[in-house]
Amino acid sequence: MSSPEARQISFIKRPEGPVGADSFEIISTAVPEPATGQVVIRNRYLSLDPYMRSALNNADNLGRPIEGRVVGQVMASRHPDFRDGDWVFAMGRWEQVSLVDGAAARHVNTNIAPASAYLSVLGFTGLTAWSGLRHYGALREGETLFVSAASGAVGSVAGQIGKIKGLRVAGCAGTDAKVAWLLDELGFDAAFNHRTTPDLTAAVARACPDGIDIDFENVGGMVFDAVFRNMRYGGRIVVCGAISQYEREPRPCVPNISDFINKRLNMRGFSVRDHAAEIKDYIEEASGWLRDGKLKYRETIVTGIENAPAAFARLFSGENFGKLVIDVA
Amino acid sequence: MSSPEARQISFIKRPEGPVGADSFEIISTAVPEPATGQVVIRNRYLSLDPYMRSALNNADNLGRPIEGRVVGQVMASRHPDFRDGDWVFAMGRWEQVSLVDGAAARHVNTNIAPASAYLSVLGFTGLTAWSGLRHYGALREGETLFVSAASGAVGSVAGQIGKIKGLRVAGCAGTDAKVAWLLDELGFDAAFNHRTTPDLTAAVARACPDGIDIDFENVGGMVFDAVFRNMRYGGRIVVCGAISQYEREPRPCVPNISDFINKRLNMRGFSVRDHAAEIKDYIEEASGWLRDGKLKYRETIVTGIENAPAAFARLFSGENFGKLVIDVA
Repeated sequence: MSSPEARQISFIKRPEGPVGADSFEIISTAVPEPATGQVVIRNRYLSLDPYMRSALNNADNLGRPIEGRVVGQVMASRHPDFRDGDWVFAMGRWEQVSLVDGAAARHVNTNIAPASAYLSVLGFTGLTAWSGLRHYGALREGETLFVSAASGAVGSVAGQIGKIKGLRVAGCAGTDAKVAWLLDELGFDAAFNHRTTPDLTAAVARACPDGIDIDFENVGGMVFDAVFRNMRYGGRIVVCGAISQYEREPRPCVPNISDFINKRLNMRGFSVRDHAAEIKDYIEEASGWLRDGKLKYRETIVTGIENAPAAFARLFSGENFGKLVIDVA
Repeated sequence: MSSPEARQISFIKRPEGPVGADSFEIISTAVPEPATGQVVIRNRYLSLDPYMRSALNNADNLGRPIEGRVVGQVMASRHPDFRDGDWVFAMGRWEQVSLVDGAAARHVNTNIAPASAYLSVLGFTGLTAWSGLRHYGALREGETLFVSAASGAVGSVAGQIGKIKGLRVAGCAGTDAKVAWLLDELGFDAAFNHRTTPDLTAAVARACPDGIDIDFENVGGMVFDAVFRNMRYGGRIVVCGAISQYEREPRPCVPNISDFINKRLNMRGFSVRDHAAEIKDYIEEASGWLRDGKLKYRETIVTGIENAPAAFARLFSGENFGKLVIDVA
């Protein structure tokens, strides 16, 4: 009798320019057995995120699936905290079954929110927005927060946290439907489509008539350039991502160094990896906001692990709308 | 009998491009009488500093002398803290006699150092280096500090503070003589001439083989670009000045926004104006370093207020070496 098998998406070729399906292949591997302290998870959902793009520039990652966060049910456990059937969150890979250290896995409560939410609004994308603003944003009521890629999984949480904290919130997104969602559903005070706006600097100025106190930056490139020109005295630039730069050479973004002095600007890059230990605090606070209707979210769930490569490419073309999650079951 | 007169350098024309003598004219005005609370100072020394360049872009400043810090002796006082002959420091103007509020003047102790030192190593240029590193540099022993315009009035103090605090210190300057002074007199670990180095990025890398933990930035432009590429994980960029950008349009400096994330960089602009209240603490600490021979300084004292415009222009051409002070007496 052959052992049970599970499918994986192996990374086989570094992309030159935009990532395409030819960088991946589907393979089948034997379902692993856990060693002491390990847990085998039958993944239900796999998170696909822009940050993964950098892993595709690293030849060391060739020949196996890229790492990715997963939510699923324990199918075999040799760790005392986990039993078969438990819903868990872990760093797995682009695969149907993941073998992980129990110490690095975490139970999720599917009574609070659907399991997929632990990869979106209650997951690391939500934590990214929350921890970035908390540690580096110094939000003050009445100030103006600007969020680029504001309809994205991270940006949409950042903007809503700004509203919850009493700030004026403006942002940009890449389609009119996304802009409408920001204004009509999420309560942004202003928003515009950065792909169809001829003068980005003027568009940011219209959206933020008093200037920007906090920029939560997800895009980089020319969008950032326009934002930078609208920063206020004492402004904080929290650099979370630079999606416009991931698939090409970085463009000159012309931050006038003298502006840093004249406006006392602070610019800080961060990664949610430095704040992973805060996930429980975040889930506790965000669960309350969800319950009270203060925090809304949108997911795009793509069924079938074989569709992960094409779905991943849509993160960079701007076609994706809402947190991208693969239903691998 | 005509009232006594004193000379001033009036700002009469905004410069287009590099500043020249035609932006100024020498005039004579009556020596003022102090009102209640005021003090009249017979200036001995006037500080000329790069930051003044921005005042020349402002038409509101036309028709009178530019503001500048002075050290001199009280010649008339209607403030209880000051008597005739007292040596004081104040914000005056490009003039032989200044009328100031006594509350904004401060005694200086010419037993500790010559009066001119209160415009250089014990003045606001020293305070700039000290407060910038203290508040925004987070210096740690064994780290690497890079200082651009390192032989300048601010940079030379910044570099020496780095050495006093146990850091490796590297820097660049614009002449071989300045580089030699950094290495032979100030104890820099590495230094190079940025005007004669063909590959700035490689030169910074040679000077800082482990990368840069703290950049004390005074130059901007292509020097900053090279420094930025050599920043280490967790690096702090303290933006003090951008002298390369004061007389022309800012150049694109291409800071790759992704580097802010990957290296968790922090970049902060500051002004010594926010730290003026710390001057007493600075003078106390720096006086000790001077006494112990740990802090060296160099002044270029130009005699005659009529020579201020030409001397000021030399700040931007790179010809000046050491803190530029005008002896106006």
